[in-house]
Amino acid sequence: MNTRSSGAVIPSVRQRILDAALEEFYTAGFHAATMRTIAKRAGCSAANVYNHFENKDELLVEILRSASDEQFTATRTALRRAGSAPAEQWTAAVVAHSLYTARNQQACLVANTELRYLDEVDRKRVVGSRDAQEHLFVTIAEAGVAGGDFDVPHVHQAVTAVLTMCAGIALWYRPDGPLSAQAVADSYGVYALNLVGYRPA
Amino acid sequence: MNTRSSGAVIPSVRQRILDAALEEFYTAGFHAATMRTIAKRAGCSAANVYNHFENKDELLVEILRSASDEQFTATRTALRRAGSAPAEQWTAAVVAHSLYTARNQQACLVANTELRYLDEVDRKRVVGSRDAQEHLFVTIAEAGVAGGDFDVPHVHQAVTAVLTMCAGIALWYRPDGPLSAQAVADSYGVYALNLVGYRPA
Repeated sequence: MNTRSSGAVIPSVRQRILDAALEEFYTAGFHAATMRTIAKRAGCSAANVYNHFENKDELLVEILRSASDEQFTATRTALRRAGSAPAEQWTAAVVAHSLYTARNQQACLVANTELRYLDEVDRKRVVGSRDAQEHLFVTIAEAGVAGGDFDVPHVHQAVTAVLTMCAGIALWYRPDGPLSAQAVADSYGVYALNLVGYRPA
Repeated sequence: MNTRSSGAVIPSVRQRILDAALEEFYTAGFHAATMRTIAKRAGCSAANVYNHFENKDELLVEILRSASDEQFTATRTALRRAGSAPAEQWTAAVVAHSLYTARNQQACLVANTELRYLDEVDRKRVVGSRDAQEHLFVTIAEAGVAGGDFDVPHVHQAVTAVLTMCAGIALWYRPDGPLSAQAVADSYGVYALNLVGYRPA
């Protein structure tokens, strides 16, 4: 028996609209989605959607910002629990980042494909949190290179390569497939540690 | 003096339309592009575009198929010139694949973001060549693992990770930036060889 279900929180109208918008952006694409199709999916009126969000750009910004913030928080939490050696920090960060991606495929895919439809100001509101994540990875990789644990041609480029590789999980991962999200994340931790030229002592 | 320019081949109308369609899909997105906007960009009439292509789906299929075929050919050419050891084959394949991506950013980006707008039949016409490329990488990685040169948790997954990482080059590479396409491709060759756990003897 799942004791949580009896105490399950009913999502607010605002959250239902956000969930519906994500589904709509994911299946139809940002261009084809309208406030009306999002309202229909959320089971409310278009007027109700407009009460909460000015337009679909605002919905996309809100979805991408909160996904990016959640992923950042998951990564930082994992870092606090990991050992201080660069290899441990690096693996913990990649595993947490990958795990979030596998468990939140729709938001991660929409972030990769639809972000370019936002105007400059809105895009900046979204990419701030993404840049902060990248900075976190760069800091760890730089410590690894400085201490002689890692060996890469270019630190920033290697971080970009790893983050793109992890983002790709959203493209192919199937929750009903043979591998759990955790198993995939753990493998990506291995690939990423290999990628930076880590040699166990 | 550029002696090639005097002998430059004037692109056929068909090629001009394809080039214009790629620009239009890249800048406006497949959804927003129309046969009319493509014609305007190509400097011809919409009727002329329809003489060559049935609709914009047909244009997208043609662009993505030829890009994928060209990338495949580049990779196979590089493999024929490389040594037979798995590490040499792997590096040659990744470098050639990455180099094509850096030099053909628009087609590679459109392939990643707009493919999902094609219907099932058209998508299959495009992904065949892509699957063949993946198979090529899997074959090399399997030989590397079998011979004890490579060590990865899952061969197919590692190949997917590498191909996603390489596809990401199209997202950030700047031809007018500090690194040449070749330098980027060479770095990615190093990352990919590290990623599969290669240990030089």
